[in-house]
Parts: sequence; structure tokens; C-alpha cells
Amino acid sequence: MTGPRLTPLADSLPETVPFVGPETQERALGRPFRARLGANESLFGPSPHAKAAMAAAAAESWMYGDPEMHDLRAAIAAHHGTTPAHVIVGEGIDGLLGTLVRLTAGPGDHVVTSLGAYPTFNFHVAGFGATLHRVPYRDDHEDPQALAAMARQVGAKLVYFANPDNPMGTWHPAATVTALIDALPQGTLLVLDEAYIDLAPPGTAPDIHPDDPRVIRMRTFSKGYGLAGMRLGYALAAPPLIRAFDKVRNHFGVGRVAQAAALAALADQNWLAAVQANVVQARARIAAIGAANGLTALPSATNFVTLDTGRDGDFARALLAECVARGVFIRMPGVAPLDRCLRISAGTDADLDILAEVLPQALAALRR
Amino acid sequence: MTGPRLTPLADSLPETVPFVGPETQERALGRPFRARLGANESLFGPSPHAKAAMAAAAAESWMYGDPEMHDLRAAIAAHHGTTPAHVIVGEGIDGLLGTLVRLTAGPGDHVVTSLGAYPTFNFHVAGFGATLHRVPYRDDHEDPQALAAMARQVGAKLVYFANPDNPMGTWHPAATVTALIDALPQGTLLVLDEAYIDLAPPGTAPDIHPDDPRVIRMRTFSKGYGLAGMRLGYALAAPPLIRAFDKVRNHFGVGRVAQAAALAALADQNWLAAVQANVVQARARIAAIGAANGLTALPSATNFVTLDTGRDGDFARALLAECVARGVFIRMPGVAPLDRCLRISAGTDADLDILAEVLPQALAALRR
Repeated sequence: MTGPRLTPLADSLPETVPFVGPETQERALGRPFRARLGANESLFGPSPHAKAAMAAAAAESWMYGDPEMHDLRAAIAAHHGTTPAHVIVGEGIDGLLGTLVRLTAGPGDHVVTSLGAYPTFNFHVAGFGATLHRVPYRDDHEDPQALAAMARQVGAKLVYFANPDNPMGTWHPAATVTALIDALPQGTLLVLDEAYIDLAPPGTAPDIHPDDPRVIRMRTFSKGYGLAGMRLGYALAAPPLIRAFDKVRNHFGVGRVAQAAALAALADQNWLAAVQANVVQARARIAAIGAANGLTALPSATNFVTLDTGRDGDFARALLAECVARGVFIRMPGVAPLDRCLRISAGTDADLDILAEVLPQALAALRR
Repeated sequence: MTGPRLTPLADSLPETVPFVGPETQERALGRPFRARLGANESLFGPSPHAKAAMAAAAAESWMYGDPEMHDLRAAIAAHHGTTPAHVIVGEGIDGLLGTLVRLTAGPGDHVVTSLGAYPTFNFHVAGFGATLHRVPYRDDHEDPQALAAMARQVGAKLVYFANPDNPMGTWHPAATVTALIDALPQGTLLVLDEAYIDLAPPGTAPDIHPDDPRVIRMRTFSKGYGLAGMRLGYALAAPPLIRAFDKVRNHFGVGRVAQAAALAALADQNWLAAVQANVVQARARIAAIGAANGLTALPSATNFVTLDTGRDGDFARALLAECVARGVFIRMPGVAPLDRCLRISAGTDADLDILAEVLPQALAALRR
């Protein structure tokens, strides 16, 4: 024996890593990116109070974080008008999605998502051996009716639905989400990924009774709150499902400094409001830069804008490569027909100046 | 349906949480602990350079951490004279143990550990549905020959062995670890938990060829380096096993600030040396405090001392409760005969002054 003796499931999983970060690309390029607009991070940064809280908590970093995350869960519960028993905090939405899939779906179970939606969810479904079913987007939106129909057809344990959506940036109003919940078959859990909800217009987040067993909502400090580097997500659901996380989660996984950062960030709603205003402005500017270059912005309820090239995936991939080669880190959807688009994060004026400079150069290079 | 539809395995797991933190006890007590000596944290704190690195990285906390952890893995590899392909970093040893068990052991697989050893490992084995076999300690040490014999008997996928040990603080010399590796049956992987190795005497860590497929070693920044609150562990193993982690891990799970902290901590070996000296002093003082109160210190190669009460588990539990009630957070082994002991972390002089004050009071309370 020379290779590791993995489980049959682990053995069957690909070794290829779908998570190539910008740092890997920078190492390949041999220089840092001029503008980092590909990971939908918040280029406006976290609240100064959050930064100060982290610096202060650094002195306490010899202590494990509270595994119950008592104060943070209480603050999140107060923010949402619910109780700490309805809240679990984890290592980003990525971590929470992994734990949720582990708890609910294994070999023989069926899970539904949209074709081209968040790949990390799919990674977890495969990683725990469940069967994934994908329904196409409709007009660049996730298609709630098709998701519900597929859930009924396959008897899904889980349906993943991001609202607003990533990678397209589009969204459905609250009433559509509520209708989706009502349309799901009995026993199907809706995984409502609201990572971008802080950047969405009023009326996007549905009212859901905190004890509704049909839904788990995922939120994050990585987007509007600007703390992607701290790995902080949380889920809101009925207490029996929240309690189930305790059966398997990494109990000390959210550290002391991260908890301090999240508490301070949540308390500074003025900062969030300022970020929201900056994002609205940045979205308009990205759309204008796109228009000036013949690319059409999709309406966005997120901290990024998806630009339709009007061409196909090969064209978009080539254009993206030209942007990256010129020091602008952006991304794009992975599957057709979404892959005719580029996805560009809301940046500061300085970042978008660079985008405005580079995008016409990249297009010109393709015409040559 | 009102309860969540869990997998049969998840449904079978207990809802009780074995991870009661000191903060939970403080909330129950209604006041903070006077001395926090129960979690084997480093009361000497992290390197000032690590604190400065965290404060500086707070400004960059809007960026996800490098999912490849390139710089940190390179630094760890250099520190150990190996290559980054032999290193994986994760959310503490706890997180890495979970991923390792997931990759290697499931229903029908057998895993071996010591009766009374690190409970988080057992939690993961149960959580992935494998069968755990426990062999007794011998003379307050983990028993390598019994572990190997049990591994042969059950055809173990994994054998867990902590050296130095937690909760007893005892250790085996390197040659014994090497002999254990050689005694394991073909195909058994030794999980060598070296969380406390930075506090052990020279000659405790065995030389293991980096490509040896029979062992994975676990290290942490939580003990000697004083960064428990950042959740930073790493594993050293042959590249095929290290690559397998990429199949399922939370790729962005180790954040940007945590990576910066670890890099700075690793670079400050002078700080680690100072902590080591402080720990040696603190161990001697805990032993002296114990002796003055009729408790016998076990020899320790860790940042804690296990004090033998010379009585039984009921006595030790009562004594622990009296200490906790007086504001001194300590812990104790969970199973007989180890549970005749108390486990006390190496603290500063001020912490140990409080221990010296409280321990006789606690004993007196029991005599009344």
C-alpha cells in the first residue's frame, strides 16, 4: 500500500480543486492584481469599529472562542427579532452549507439546484454522496417554478436557491420566495442563500416565521459587512434544525477574534448603510463602463454586476483572460448560456478607473 | 413533518454537546473566572509580532484568505525541512481530525484510540459512522503495544495516538513512536497528534520520512504559539493523503488574518523558546502547589500538569467543583481510573498565585 486508504466515496471524488484563488493567479502572473474585482469581496472594507475590535481581540487570541458563540448569536438574534436558539454561526456560508448537507443528504438522497449556481454547494453535495439535479436558469434568473417541479419529481431533501443570485446578480421579490416555499413538497428543505441580501432592494427578503421547518436561511459577514477574510456566516432556522448542527460541527471553529469582529460589524449599521450606497454607485458605474464598451449590464441586487457580452462563452473567456493578463481580477459564470457574461465586483472609484482603462484594451486585443 | 429530516446517521447522533466552554460556566457562575487554567491555552499569549500581524491584517480582512495557503504552507514546510505538498492547514487540529476521519473512515470501518484520550477525535469517528475501539491507559500513559494489538485485531483504518498525551500530560520517547508505527498492520494509518510537542523535551518527536504513508502528524498554533483563538492547525503527511484533503475541505476556511498570525508566530521562535521556559517553570510551581496540598503531579511534557488526588473520580469531581466555584477554571479526565486527577494549565505567576490560594480552600471545603 502506498496511497491512502480512503472511503469509497472519498476515493470517487475528483482531486481537481475548483477553488483557484486570486493569489494563485497572481503567483502565475508574477505580480499582484491592479484591481481585485473577482471574488465579490467588499472593496469598501469592514467597519473601522470591526477593525479596532480585531486589533483589540488580538491580545486575547490565546483563548479559544466561546464554542456557544453566546454573545454573537444573541446579537444576531436581536438583529433579526428572533432568539439565539434560531441562530447558528459557522466558518462562512461555505462551512455551514457543508454541515447542512452532511446532516441531511447522503447516498440515495436527492438535491436540487440551478445549472450554473453556486458551485461550492454542489461540491458539498458530491462530497457527501447525494445526487444533484440541476434546472436551467430562465432569463438569467433562477427559476423557482422549475426548482419546485424538480423537487417534486425527485423527492428532494434539499433545494438550493440563492436570492439574490450569484453569478448573475438577479433576484426575485419576497413574494416569489414565499411562493417557492409553499410549492415545495412536504419534507423538502429550502436552503435560501441570502449572502447578498444586504445589497438587495427592500422587499427582497421574505418574512418567514422563525419556526418554519421548511427553510434555512444563510447570511454572511463576507459581503456587505466586508469580513470575507474572517470566515463568518450564520444560518437562521427552526431550533430543531439549528440544534442538529451541534451534533457534528467544529465546535471551536469560529475563533475569538472572528466573533469580536462580527459583533462590532453588526453593531455598526451606519457603516453597512454607507457600503450599500457605495455599491449602488459602483453598480451604476460598472454598467456605464460596460455600455461604453458594448457590454450590457444585467440588473443587480448584489455587490457585483454581471455584464452580458452579447457573444458566447468562448468570447467571454477570452475577454476575461485579457482582463486578467492586464491585472484586473474578474470572474465569469461557468456554464452556458450564463457564460456569455463577465462578473465584476463593486469596487472603489480607483478600482473602477482601472477597469475603465483595461476593458477597452482587452476588447481591442481580441479584435486584433 | 415538524422536525428536520436528517440522514439516519445524523439522526442517531446525540444532541448533547460535549464541548462546554469556560464562557458557559462563567455565565452560570454570574462572574468571570479569576484564573483560566482549564483549556490548556497559553496564558503567556502569542508573540507580539503575531499580535501586530493580526492588527495589520485586520485592514485586509475584506479579502478572502488564500485558499492554497501558499505562503503559510511554504513557511511550515521550511520549518520542518519538507515541502508544501506535505502540509495542509486547517481550522485547528479539531477541524483536520474531522476531515481526516471523513476521508478515511465510515460505517463498517474500525478505529482505535485510548480509553480517556481526546474526546473530539471520538466525536468525529461517531459523526462519520465508524466503529471506535478503546484500549486502556497503562500507568497513566497511552499504551502503544495495546493500540497496535487492537489495530491488528480489528483491522483498524486509523489509530489515534497523542504524544505527549492529553489529559495525562505523559509522553513516550521518539523510539517508542517509531516502534508503534512499525507494529501497525499494513494499511493502518497512525494519527499522531503532536499538539503539545512544542512543550515536550528533546527526543520526543520521532524522525518520520515525509513520504511515509503510515503516519499523519497533527500540529497546532493553539498551544506553544498561543493562538487558540485563531483556529490554526496543520498536518504533515505524504502528498497523496495531503491532496485528498482538497477533495472535501472548506477551501476558504482558514482566513486571511489567521494566516497572517500563523506566519508571524512561526517566524518568532524566540517567543516560543520564552514560552517553553515559562511552561517549565509553571509546571514546577503547579507540582509544588499540588504537593503542598497532598496532590501528586504526574510528569508532564505539555503546557499543563495532571495532579493525582490519590482518591477516586467522585472526590476529584467534587474538588474540581469547589475550585470552579471559587473562580478557578480547571478540567479533569473523563473516565476511570484517569478521573482521579485534576488537569491544570501552565499559567503565569499571578494565575498560579490564585491556584495556590484556592486549592487549599477547596480541599478544606470537602473535609467539612
